[in-house]
Amino acid sequence: MNSSNDYDVIVIGAGSGGLTAAAGLARFGKSVAMIERHHIGGDCTNVGCIPSKSLLHLSSEIAKLGRGAASTSPSSASSTAESLRRVRSRRDRLRHREHDEFSSTENLTLVYGEATIVAPGRVEVTHDGSTDVFVCKHIVVATGSRPQRIDLGLAAGRAITNDELFELDEVPDALAIIGAGPVGLEMALAFARLGSKVTVVEQGDQVAVGVLGEAALVVQRHLESHGVAFLLGTRADVSLPVISAADRVLVAIGRHPNTEGLGLETVGVKLDQGRCIEIDDRGRTSVEGIWATGDVTNRTGTTHGASAWSRRIIKSIVARPLPIGDEPLEPRVIFTEPELAAIGEQPEKVPGDVRRIRFELKDADRGYTDELEDGLIILDVRRLSGKILGATIVGPRAGELISVFALAMHLGVPMHKWYGTVWPYPSYADALGRVVDLYMSEAMGSIPSDALRWAKGRFAATIGRGQASG
Amino acid sequence: MNSSNDYDVIVIGAGSGGLTAAAGLARFGKSVAMIERHHIGGDCTNVGCIPSKSLLHLSSEIAKLGRGAASTSPSSASSTAESLRRVRSRRDRLRHREHDEFSSTENLTLVYGEATIVAPGRVEVTHDGSTDVFVCKHIVVATGSRPQRIDLGLAAGRAITNDELFELDEVPDALAIIGAGPVGLEMALAFARLGSKVTVVEQGDQVAVGVLGEAALVVQRHLESHGVAFLLGTRADVSLPVISAADRVLVAIGRHPNTEGLGLETVGVKLDQGRCIEIDDRGRTSVEGIWATGDVTNRTGTTHGASAWSRRIIKSIVARPLPIGDEPLEPRVIFTEPELAAIGEQPEKVPGDVRRIRFELKDADRGYTDELEDGLIILDVRRLSGKILGATIVGPRAGELISVFALAMHLGVPMHKWYGTVWPYPSYADALGRVVDLYMSEAMGSIPSDALRWAKGRFAATIGRGQASG
Repeated sequence: MNSSNDYDVIVIGAGSGGLTAAAGLARFGKSVAMIERHHIGGDCTNVGCIPSKSLLHLSSEIAKLGRGAASTSPSSASSTAESLRRVRSRRDRLRHREHDEFSSTENLTLVYGEATIVAPGRVEVTHDGSTDVFVCKHIVVATGSRPQRIDLGLAAGRAITNDELFELDEVPDALAIIGAGPVGLEMALAFARLGSKVTVVEQGDQVAVGVLGEAALVVQRHLESHGVAFLLGTRADVSLPVISAADRVLVAIGRHPNTEGLGLETVGVKLDQGRCIEIDDRGRTSVEGIWATGDVTNRTGTTHGASAWSRRIIKSIVARPLPIGDEPLEPRVIFTEPELAAIGEQPEKVPGDVRRIRFELKDADRGYTDELEDGLIILDVRRLSGKILGATIVGPRAGELISVFALAMHLGVPMHKWYGTVWPYPSYADALGRVVDLYMSEAMGSIPSDALRWAKGRFAATIGRGQASG
Repeated sequence: MNSSNDYDVIVIGAGSGGLTAAAGLARFGKSVAMIERHHIGGDCTNVGCIPSKSLLHLSSEIAKLGRGAASTSPSSASSTAESLRRVRSRRDRLRHREHDEFSSTENLTLVYGEATIVAPGRVEVTHDGSTDVFVCKHIVVATGSRPQRIDLGLAAGRAITNDELFELDEVPDALAIIGAGPVGLEMALAFARLGSKVTVVEQGDQVAVGVLGEAALVVQRHLESHGVAFLLGTRADVSLPVISAADRVLVAIGRHPNTEGLGLETVGVKLDQGRCIEIDDRGRTSVEGIWATGDVTNRTGTTHGASAWSRRIIKSIVARPLPIGDEPLEPRVIFTEPELAAIGEQPEKVPGDVRRIRFELKDADRGYTDELEDGLIILDVRRLSGKILGATIVGPRAGELISVFALAMHLGVPMHKWYGTVWPYPSYADALGRVVDLYMSEAMGSIPSDALRWAKGRFAATIGRGQASG
């Protein structure tokens, strides 16, 4: 800490958004203080991506071992409880590594305590009852979010969220999960592999709400084959037998931004619908000199999204005159088996000016050799321009394949320019070549009618404008 | 067959190159006869990619089952022999499907028989002792290659190639493999998983010759952990105990193009070093109206490469005035576990004007959660221009990740334009984001010195030219 507590930037929160902002600004020579009230790494390191993917990995290893024994016998209790301990010890190791790394970063001061913004450029930090005042040019709010809770009237400790899940000492015999989003689906798979009897209760009429229903159904069917039961279109209530009988109930119904107790109202930072911080395309809040990134904002809810938005803040602070570019396009992945990945917009009903390409992965040669029974690539491409609007992939390695779209859509490469790429054979990516061929052969055939439709549309629009102005 | 045996195009060989050429030309309205002397699908379907990847898949399933039992007990003989039978039955199903599909393709006639070119535009086809004469405008030679053999002096049937490998009824107890290329490495893994004691004998001083040694070593170490032994820098000879004691010896030392018996000499088609057919960037041989594609040429040795070169022939025949574009850039993948993938040029020694970026996959967050101990991304980028020259990836899903480079290098996207892409977290593709960050931070720091070096180079070159001309 410098003697005067005077910094270029104060970052509040040391999760994915805060770490990226703090490290990046420090690297560009800004003096940065990063304030964290709990553990470094935020949700991702402590109760999110890292422990959940560790558990998915370990549970997959255990399930493989289990398949060698009689298929009905659950994996031994010691190995499953051991896997929970191992998840914690690896999480702790990463947390310590991040602490050490960021404690020794040049230009960066890591401060543990509760931060309150008392005015633009002025932050109070309370720790162990004593309060320090920090002054700065810029404040970056990166306080993240917390799991939404519902009161089910269960005894203390029976209803938990991902905040408590990885602290369990034993794998529950019966686990009810409320919410079939990323957390609910991934943990349903992990605990089913570890021997829990898992039931997922979801209010919506499909799993992975927001993803194309057809693709989401593939994941649901696979989880069912692992023994997971689903109650869709069902409101979670303690009167439901699966909830009243569950040893644990994991509530995974969404996130709530951490905007409280920060002094945001005092300084007049505007919230979106009173919930999350409203930011512009550079990450600026309504108050000059106060920025926000990550889950606490109205723009993103993922680790990679938080990081991408923090990079915009770094660029805006360090190289203000440069144009900021299009908003980051976030791929979304659910790391079940198979993986479910999506990017961009993809409505259930295809608009008239959009061509939808649909390819079944079992028809790719690798799908054949690996005896796939399902899996899909669904692509929406604007007619004539070839602009890719959205993609959904469900199948092995979907989380990697979607990255090809992440790069191409970031670069604005239209679909026809993909033609000529030589895809490795027989990888799953080879299916992308099949998709390009499908697109090209369909597009070739329909260019005249597409052009006609486009011309008609312009004609109709011209008439429409004429009438409106006349 | 049309009554006069008169076609626009005759394609000789129904492997990957021939099928792509024939189907594509037929779709564009050309009348095509495709002549095949053996099975439709060529090496890929019958003795290559398809059965090898099927066996890798099935052996992986068997190995998972085996891990549940005592780790030293070999998998039961019935299940391993059954997997070989299953590989054959699935290969046969695909072969029949391809036969049915291509037999009913509009404008395409599938003819089984031996083809001989007697003159440009004139092919004789012999089947069951009778000979038909076909005339055409274009001939496409797509006769592929066959495994190179060596005489080890072993009893008939003990030394085999991939042509015979998938016909085995039993998994050999001791299997020696000569050659540590793609076939040797993939089959070493598959048979080790099926319980064979496998030894690989390789003349070169590393496995996967042609790939960066550091990356190849990762695959070697993993195969060793599966029990595969390696004898590097060793000439295969029957006096070697591992060969004399082996139940079977798989010879996998390379391929020999099938140029014999086709009448190529008669019509004057030029061979490259008397071995493979020399073609130009459109697939033209030295004789007008005779084209060649795939393994029989001096341009490619893979299924996806053959297909890419056939597309150039289609374009050249159907849309002759259009420019043909750069030569296809083929990614190369060895489907071991982990996978080893490479694209472009990547010399062991980095040239001065090239920046090499090296990233260890265990340092990616997914590498951490999956407890990876190794894995690499190595990237060569031209200083200043950011042009990607080559990439090598070894690790889980490397065969998918390399496809991001296949697209980007096809499009000629320089490395700095990747910056800003949001990669899915925590996928393996997220490591690509880390690589981009590494590149950007290193490149930023060294732009002045790179520019100076570049200017100096130009200066030196100018002086050089001055001296030469002076």
